[in-house]
Amino acid sequence: MSRHDYIPQVPYGTKDILPLDAARKRDVENDLARLFLAWGYQEVITPTFEYYETLRASAPEAADDSSFRFFDRSGRMLALRPDMTTPIARVAVMRLKESPLPLRLFYLANVFRQEEAQAGRQCEFYQAGVELLGAGGIAADAEVVALAVESLLAAGLVDFQVCLGQVDFISGIMAEAELDAVLGHKVKRALVERNMVGLGELLAECRVEPGSRDLLQQLPMLHGKLDMLQSVRRRVKNETSQAALDNLADIYQLLEKYGIDRHVMFDLGIIRDFDYYTGMVFETYTAGLGYPICGGGRYDRMAGFFGREQPATGFALGIERVLLALERQGLDTVRSARGVYVGWAEGKLPQAIAAVKRLRDEGETAELGLQEQSRATAERESKLRGCERCLYID
Amino acid sequence: MSRHDYIPQVPYGTKDILPLDAARKRDVENDLARLFLAWGYQEVITPTFEYYETLRASAPEAADDSSFRFFDRSGRMLALRPDMTTPIARVAVMRLKESPLPLRLFYLANVFRQEEAQAGRQCEFYQAGVELLGAGGIAADAEVVALAVESLLAAGLVDFQVCLGQVDFISGIMAEAELDAVLGHKVKRALVERNMVGLGELLAECRVEPGSRDLLQQLPMLHGKLDMLQSVRRRVKNETSQAALDNLADIYQLLEKYGIDRHVMFDLGIIRDFDYYTGMVFETYTAGLGYPICGGGRYDRMAGFFGREQPATGFALGIERVLLALERQGLDTVRSARGVYVGWAEGKLPQAIAAVKRLRDEGETAELGLQEQSRATAERESKLRGCERCLYID
Repeated sequence: MSRHDYIPQVPYGTKDILPLDAARKRDVENDLARLFLAWGYQEVITPTFEYYETLRASAPEAADDSSFRFFDRSGRMLALRPDMTTPIARVAVMRLKESPLPLRLFYLANVFRQEEAQAGRQCEFYQAGVELLGAGGIAADAEVVALAVESLLAAGLVDFQVCLGQVDFISGIMAEAELDAVLGHKVKRALVERNMVGLGELLAECRVEPGSRDLLQQLPMLHGKLDMLQSVRRRVKNETSQAALDNLADIYQLLEKYGIDRHVMFDLGIIRDFDYYTGMVFETYTAGLGYPICGGGRYDRMAGFFGREQPATGFALGIERVLLALERQGLDTVRSARGVYVGWAEGKLPQAIAAVKRLRDEGETAELGLQEQSRATAERESKLRGCERCLYID
Repeated sequence: MSRHDYIPQVPYGTKDILPLDAARKRDVENDLARLFLAWGYQEVITPTFEYYETLRASAPEAADDSSFRFFDRSGRMLALRPDMTTPIARVAVMRLKESPLPLRLFYLANVFRQEEAQAGRQCEFYQAGVELLGAGGIAADAEVVALAVESLLAAGLVDFQVCLGQVDFISGIMAEAELDAVLGHKVKRALVERNMVGLGELLAECRVEPGSRDLLQQLPMLHGKLDMLQSVRRRVKNETSQAALDNLADIYQLLEKYGIDRHVMFDLGIIRDFDYYTGMVFETYTAGLGYPICGGGRYDRMAGFFGREQPATGFALGIERVLLALERQGLDTVRSARGVYVGWAEGKLPQAIAAVKRLRDEGETAELGLQEQSRATAERESKLRGCERCLYID
């Protein structure tokens, strides 16, 4: 095969983002960056790949088969980052030890997972997110949930729902039910997959006290507002789960003060896919998309893997998913036209250059014709390119 | 080693970009994006990795040992992109065939080369650049050089020099000198490295007509303004080199019209490191940095490797290098302070939330204290965090 016969492709699970979508992406990302800055968050950029060890140390399940791995020249294994939570925790421990806590950081970054590609989620995809490090307590959790809501509003979404859960609620019931590790893991998987039938079969197999069994079986359906939370609160006997529900109620009260409670409900069946979460967790859904556009929660143990235990909470949203939702919901902002096309007759290039210069100095977008052409050709070119108007220099 | 003992590092040749530098990077990139858009360029985002074949097809020397390579699940070799010129040419051929020519594209992207790290150039680094596809001729070349100058001005640099060369000038002399391929390659390497002694030795070895030999030997010193160009023009006998010099003079005339000629000089010894250049080439230098901050040129053959021959010209600038130059030259813009710190007394969190909400609605940056504290503590925290003022709610 000669080099000239090569027909290029993009790798599986990746795609080119063409001008219209690239402009939408840049606009949304800039809106998010402005919002994060206004809330006191500061940007951090980390390398696209990490030592595989680093990823494994904090989140083994995130650094599994689905990571893209390779070697550096000294034979150490590298991996493209599968998420930004571990790199941010690493930066905080390595580089920002002296910064006053709490530390508010944000990122806009691409991450990589070698999984089956789907709408809104390729093997390379873009995330925006924040991490709030060094603060336990409901004020921090409420801030992160409120900021997630404001992020989606800033991106242009109108109709979406944050579903709030608490991993301790489930842990408490599982402990109460005295499930062994293997069965506990299977039950968790069934919950993640919202596999009601499988869940029922698992629970039938084991000796679980009827109250706990009912709660576990019903978990995937325990969503609603404060009244649902209160009714579940009356049925729960263990203190861990009770404290978890009280924690959610307290966070909700603050979300009312943030004025964003209309976007928030409880979903006690939420189990996030990484095991590093330790408290409040949430996922955000919007019409027309069968997967969350945003998710996060509290993960107090992660930084400890790098030598400095500290509370932490945060979220990430999927940029492509948000853009897809905006498109499907007809909420795309109209892009402005492409400005002025400047064509020129023979010998008039210097004058045409002066003209584009003047237009740009006045704040206009101006495209210069790159060869002499007739007025008719220039006007046709201008239309073809979607320019607002044509200026012809002769 | 327990997981908790793991002391994280970043991979060789990569680094974390901390808040201050991340903010500077975002500001410069947004200034550049605005400029590119005003000149009619549109953004394209491509995957972080490409099939290795794709990179090799168009620029074998860019896809050499220095690329980070790995395999996808079907065993095809992937590589982290070593530059953006090949991916953009690929996109143009694959996805933008129907767009009217010339096609103006820009990118802001990270690229990867497994080389020895140096100041301003890590193994992962950031580039901004444009590609102007489908237009031959001096209007296109002048536009690209002028835009490079405007980019550096937009980024905040004041004092820098674009050095303009022409690969055909050197090719013409080499052809005239009838160097064989091996010797030609060695001479080119000596020129790239500006190795005067080595160059002299190579030229002494071979039978080269004295006029050509003198020109080749003096190449690294042939820099200056139009008068230098004219004096060299009189010494050159072959048509290829003469046409190359005339091309440079014509481009320069247009650069005068763009009003940026004070930033431009000629340097006939410039040989860019990729072999894909076919005409005008340039490199840009600034005080205090021993390597170019920006480079580019005409590369008319590349897209042909993907099945559609077309003229093309463009440039890339190194974001980290520009940031480093700004810093070394004391041209960093002062960052604004971090806004208002809002502290609160016991029981006053809801009121404090209302206060940060109000401040942010008014366009201020506001950071919320995340636990109750005394006024004195709040004021200390506010100072510690570099906030402009402290608001205490009690």
